Amino acid sequence: MQLSHIEHIGIAVKSIEEQLPYYEGVLGLKCYNIETVEDQKVKTAFLKVGQTKIELLEPTSEESAVAKFIEKRGEGIHHIAYSTQGVEEALREVEAKGVRLIDEHPRKGAEGLNIAFLHPKSTGSVLTELCEHPE
Amino acid sequence: MQLSHIEHIGIAVKSIEEQLPYYEGVLGLKCYNIETVEDQKVKTAFLKVGQTKIELLEPTSEESAVAKFIEKRGEGIHHIAYSTQGVEEALREVEAKGVRLIDEHPRKGAEGLNIAFLHPKSTGSVLTELCEHPE
Repeated sequence: MQLSHIEHIGIAVKSIEEQLPYYEGVLGLKCYNIETVEDQKVKTAFLKVGQTKIELLEPTSEESAVAKFIEKRGEGIHHIAYSTQGVEEALREVEAKGVRLIDEHPRKGAEGLNIAFLHPKSTGSVLTELCEHPE
Repeated sequence: MQLSHIEHIGIAVKSIEEQLPYYEGVLGLKCYNIETVEDQKVKTAFLKVGQTKIELLEPTSEESAVAKFIEKRGEGIHHIAYSTQGVEEALREVEAKGVRLIDEHPRKGAEGLNIAFLHPKSTGSVLTELCEHPE
């Protein structure tokens, strides 16, 4: 598996509207997209800095994993997503090395990416996502 | 303030030695430097992925802020560091916007960078570092 860069850092927030003034007004980043990812029950806002996106994650339901994260740990950094070519092959490779997977196969994430999560039990408690552009 | 990229992501670990096999053997990254930062009471290991470094932080003392972080929250993502030109000016700029600072002025961090931390109370609970190369 070859990781090219950090595609995004996911940050759990209670309210995108309340956090954007910090990211835009203080850090000077620009939110270029807001979209809802139904199956993860989150609204996401994206800001770009270099090769990497900051992905703000606001739960749209109390059932959302992000809502549970905030309830347990408070707002803050939620996950790191690495960009790679061939997420399916990467999953098989890390699985063979004993890594526990959250997603057995890639699924669609925000911005149309193919994504899969590795379990924090296998990654030093860092929720880790692998992703690739579909083309 | 203009942020160019994410310089590094700090990850709190109990033991660099125990975590490196995941970062090197599973993710395929390469640790190119290990150094101790005395005034932060941490040993740090660096791995590069694209523009960004993964900085593993192992406390060298129970008094270390990283030791307290691990005691309270467990291992995991500790902070995000953005690269910018002119950390001193950036601090004055964000301070004028009401951001609480941990470091009033830049100090020396790992790898000789000039660094300063913003207080998570002002950054949506994300411990945030600004840094620049000294030259």
